[in-house]
Amino acid sequence: MTGKIRVQDKFWKYYREVVRKDMIPYQWKVLNDEIAIKIERERNDDSIPNEKSHAIENFKIAAGLKTGNHYGWVFQDSDVYKWLEAVAYSLNEYMDEDLKALADSVVDLIAAAQEDDGYLGTYFTIEAPERKLKRLGESHELYCAGHFMEAAVAYYEAVKSEKVLTVACKLADYIGRHFGEEEGQIHGCDGHEEIEIGLAKLYRATGEAKYLELSKYFLYIRGTDPEFFLRQKEEEKESTPLIAGLEKFPLSYCQNHKPLLEQDTAEGHAVRLVYMCTAMADVAALTNDEKLFAACKKIWRNIVDKRMYITGGIGSTVIGESFTFDYDLPNDTMYCETCASVGLVFFAGRMLENELRSEYGDVMERALYNTVLSGMALDGKHFFYVNPLEAIPESSAKDPAKSHVKCVRPEWLGCACCPPNLARLLASLEKYIYVQREGTIFANLFMNCDGEFTVHGNPVFIQQETDYPWGSVKNPYAEEWQGNIKFKINCKKETEFTLGIRIPNWANEYVVRVNGKEEAVEKADGIVSITKVFQNDIIEVSLDMKIETWNACLYVRNDIGKVAVSRGPIVYCMEEADNGKYLHLLSIGKHAEFTYHFDSDLLGGVGVIKTKGYAHMLPPQKELPLYQKQREVVETREKELMLIPYYAWANRGENEMQVWIRQER
Amino acid sequence: MTGKIRVQDKFWKYYREVVRKDMIPYQWKVLNDEIAIKIERERNDDSIPNEKSHAIENFKIAAGLKTGNHYGWVFQDSDVYKWLEAVAYSLNEYMDEDLKALADSVVDLIAAAQEDDGYLGTYFTIEAPERKLKRLGESHELYCAGHFMEAAVAYYEAVKSEKVLTVACKLADYIGRHFGEEEGQIHGCDGHEEIEIGLAKLYRATGEAKYLELSKYFLYIRGTDPEFFLRQKEEEKESTPLIAGLEKFPLSYCQNHKPLLEQDTAEGHAVRLVYMCTAMADVAALTNDEKLFAACKKIWRNIVDKRMYITGGIGSTVIGESFTFDYDLPNDTMYCETCASVGLVFFAGRMLENELRSEYGDVMERALYNTVLSGMALDGKHFFYVNPLEAIPESSAKDPAKSHVKCVRPEWLGCACCPPNLARLLASLEKYIYVQREGTIFANLFMNCDGEFTVHGNPVFIQQETDYPWGSVKNPYAEEWQGNIKFKINCKKETEFTLGIRIPNWANEYVVRVNGKEEAVEKADGIVSITKVFQNDIIEVSLDMKIETWNACLYVRNDIGKVAVSRGPIVYCMEEADNGKYLHLLSIGKHAEFTYHFDSDLLGGVGVIKTKGYAHMLPPQKELPLYQKQREVVETREKELMLIPYYAWANRGENEMQVWIRQER
Repeated sequence: MTGKIRVQDKFWKYYREVVRKDMIPYQWKVLNDEIAIKIERERNDDSIPNEKSHAIENFKIAAGLKTGNHYGWVFQDSDVYKWLEAVAYSLNEYMDEDLKALADSVVDLIAAAQEDDGYLGTYFTIEAPERKLKRLGESHELYCAGHFMEAAVAYYEAVKSEKVLTVACKLADYIGRHFGEEEGQIHGCDGHEEIEIGLAKLYRATGEAKYLELSKYFLYIRGTDPEFFLRQKEEEKESTPLIAGLEKFPLSYCQNHKPLLEQDTAEGHAVRLVYMCTAMADVAALTNDEKLFAACKKIWRNIVDKRMYITGGIGSTVIGESFTFDYDLPNDTMYCETCASVGLVFFAGRMLENELRSEYGDVMERALYNTVLSGMALDGKHFFYVNPLEAIPESSAKDPAKSHVKCVRPEWLGCACCPPNLARLLASLEKYIYVQREGTIFANLFMNCDGEFTVHGNPVFIQQETDYPWGSVKNPYAEEWQGNIKFKINCKKETEFTLGIRIPNWANEYVVRVNGKEEAVEKADGIVSITKVFQNDIIEVSLDMKIETWNACLYVRNDIGKVAVSRGPIVYCMEEADNGKYLHLLSIGKHAEFTYHFDSDLLGGVGVIKTKGYAHMLPPQKELPLYQKQREVVETREKELMLIPYYAWANRGENEMQVWIRQER
Repeated sequence: MTGKIRVQDKFWKYYREVVRKDMIPYQWKVLNDEIAIKIERERNDDSIPNEKSHAIENFKIAAGLKTGNHYGWVFQDSDVYKWLEAVAYSLNEYMDEDLKALADSVVDLIAAAQEDDGYLGTYFTIEAPERKLKRLGESHELYCAGHFMEAAVAYYEAVKSEKVLTVACKLADYIGRHFGEEEGQIHGCDGHEEIEIGLAKLYRATGEAKYLELSKYFLYIRGTDPEFFLRQKEEEKESTPLIAGLEKFPLSYCQNHKPLLEQDTAEGHAVRLVYMCTAMADVAALTNDEKLFAACKKIWRNIVDKRMYITGGIGSTVIGESFTFDYDLPNDTMYCETCASVGLVFFAGRMLENELRSEYGDVMERALYNTVLSGMALDGKHFFYVNPLEAIPESSAKDPAKSHVKCVRPEWLGCACCPPNLARLLASLEKYIYVQREGTIFANLFMNCDGEFTVHGNPVFIQQETDYPWGSVKNPYAEEWQGNIKFKINCKKETEFTLGIRIPNWANEYVVRVNGKEEAVEKADGIVSITKVFQNDIIEVSLDMKIETWNACLYVRNDIGKVAVSRGPIVYCMEEADNGKYLHLLSIGKHAEFTYHFDSDLLGGVGVIKTKGYAHMLPPQKELPLYQKQREVVETREKELMLIPYYAWANRGENEMQVWIRQER
């Protein structure tokens, strides 16, 4: 329950309009192969299909409307489903009848591609009906089904399309017949988690307990029979792999190494892991399953305390797009897939459904304003799959181990999971602003928005006014404290409830004012709570939005002797465009002073940080000896460094970028 | 012409005895599968054969003495050839009749496995006679032939075995008939250079110009038809690959991207590149080919000025075991294959055949005392393929991109190229000590040895006495200058010649004494030359062997803010065994003072360096926040750091190691 929220925020409106006006039409053209773009492989791997999308064509062929072969990944369908889901959220905000008509036609097409028994999956319908559900480690059949269920529920909620829900239920029932504990059913799950999320949503939309049960089944069976995928593969060993190379990854790649409740570290493919955790937290909340929630918390702690980049990115290696081990956070070879941070936002959101703690919002905010936003160019038409914390064009071009580290966002990607994932999150951002639990309304994210809630049967309106994330509007109480959030509360009838407000972990200090009067309110679990009888009230929170320098924990080898800079929720970086080439020669003083200004002409309007730093001077001769005795001292000069928000990098052509900056002592 | 040299040196005698007494018998057992050892894959790659060697068995099957199938790499034969070559050098130094009898039997076996037309290659003889010479990009047929020729010449020179030379010539003649400019011949070369070196040696041994011509042919054809390997592959496209995965590498992987004379950077597989350069420099010297020598120098400059580790390691990435680009020298993901540094010694040696410059010896010395020696454990029974400059056991175990970075030397390797390569170099080290050109004897390497030369027809004896590499014997002239080399020259008749002595680039100062009297002698090309009429003379050089700290050039991103420590020719490192875990928390002062002592009980006797450094202190609580605001300052305390020679690391179990050390400012 989050109430009915309308986002009015200038910062987010921009991105949401980009999604609606640019990304959705653009993606539609891509899905139909109607646009001449360069589809890049996300890394040097010839097996990645990159000629075209063909996704809509696959559905037409499966529906019998055309003849031909399937093209693309075995999970190509999910691109269409994520597009539909983004459309649904977009229609929620702004009803565009043409877009609705187009989406209806896509629903019709999907329905036509569904088989009579409920099966839905164009690759297997077209190319390999005999292989259905026979190689679940690679097939992504339930993964695609889960994405369709998410899209179906969103579209149903947006436009009340019964048809889409019917298709989803028919598919879910097909799956319910084929999987389960009973004899003759498959006792297993999909290699890529997602069906668990989709089924839980379908349960919420339909109230059908069987879908929740099935979601829970898929969660709990994972890891109980680690050889399941391998056995399936051996049983049909004549057949070619559905995705070559997956067999070389360890069992933990798809979280199949041990039962769910025994997993206490984040292992394997990062997107899979966070999707699994999202479903775990969701089902835990829906079923009050304390053991399941405790398992979520163990993995959450491991990610947040030991395996997450300061940008909210996760996944330390391209090999298997995976987590590696505690404190292993290389800045130049990492994966930090956009989808993984989108999934981390989902996970954090579901954790809040279980318990209100500020840290879930803190992590959500970190992922959202940094790695998630970095996934898209300012034009909404170029996308990162991988979000490095350090990028050097020559390394990306010439070091084969860094082929995944792109320095400019491609127009589209061979595996196109990230752009539509980003679109569906941005278009549904209102879902994450508030969490309502009984008599508490918890303000989790800060942006200008109107919210309509029902508390004890009474309508409660909350208008949020804020200068987030820049804090550039003057704070009326204290100029240096620029993070200001005002909640204008309006109740038709006097209503007693608690307004909880997250105090972000970057804020050293905060002030709370109730109707203009400062009140001392202690934080509990990072939250300030005002409990009173509300009618027409104004609650204000001012946050200390000072520029901060951060050290990584001493165990993080790659960040030793370095600092990262942030202001409010935004992590900053240096770019070559502002600081020249060879960013590694620059350093920041230990007691550096910073200045901040908002530059409305730069990168669509961003806050800019400057500081006096240092630069090792390259001697005039072009060729330097490779090794020099240290007595031949390097000259270091003062140099003004300029930092821009991390999310806005790589919007000015190919250039170097660096988040962690060496610190002079 | 290097004269007849006998090594008496304590430091090197140890290694040469290890080769003779341990490695050669050990390798013989391995080649015969007569020893229960764990053969490790050099990285996580299931396609690497690691059950057994089977190398001798392959020859028996090819010779018709046994039945069965070939096992192992398509180039498995080369392990036997390199073993034979090491045996030959060892017999040169110490004639062991049993070993000679064994080697003779191996020659007989090889001869029996040779086909009537001269073809030699057990894989193709046994498994695929129809594929001979049909897929040279993968087959290593000429690579193996080259290694056999090197072995044959060495064995012929050691024991005057005509039989081995006959087999080699028959093989070379077979190759000569099949390759060349004429119609019906193959216009191409092998994907892995080596035949070029073997043919040049065969020319030196037999005086047959056709072998030199053929070597030159293979050099010059490389890169003139970049599609050659691909075309061969397509022509027999039904067949399975001989080595899967090679097709994914670029043309430069085997230096096939452009003609030889146009290559001005070191590209592709590092071992292939240095083998190619070795042959280029060899043929340039033998044929006075100035263009070819100029091409060698371009590549030499690129390696030495921009692509070589301070340890003399080369090859910056595991992917293709390759060079990457200028100044890209990561310390923890590099390759630095032992074979590549062995090849760099060969290349440097051949450059000296063309011109006398100290830098060739400097690089040879750097590679030899550091990466080459690191390739072998002190017991002579464990070997590194990859020689990292930074190793962390947890990273190697859990980061799939570092599976090649072993922290303990394996007993044997799936691809066993390195151990025998190391053995043949150590056993033939006397070849690199002196270079004689007309009336000049150039002392290139420093070790205790006796040399017998002929100058202007007169016999000249030079006894070298030195305390290299430790300099622990007191210098009679200056205590702090411990690098002392004494040349005792004895001529039966008065003979005028020039004694050139390399002044290593690490020595800031040097003193020359002629018969006890200091003389001011300027360096030219890094060489001091004493020209006089010699009879009974003593020439002494004292080198300033101070401990040095080194900075890498500012372009090297991975070493910025770090120093490496050396003393004389030895590069030092920190090991966990001496300094505790988390070496990245340690740093060295900018004006650090060092102490040195020789510890005869440590690691077989090594020079040890100590200095007062600093350590970031881990707070007592076990769990640290992942990111902390910088104001929460890290505590740093003084700590004594202990450094050991790099080559001796990983002899005390699995532990962390680091060459480049952060420098406090």
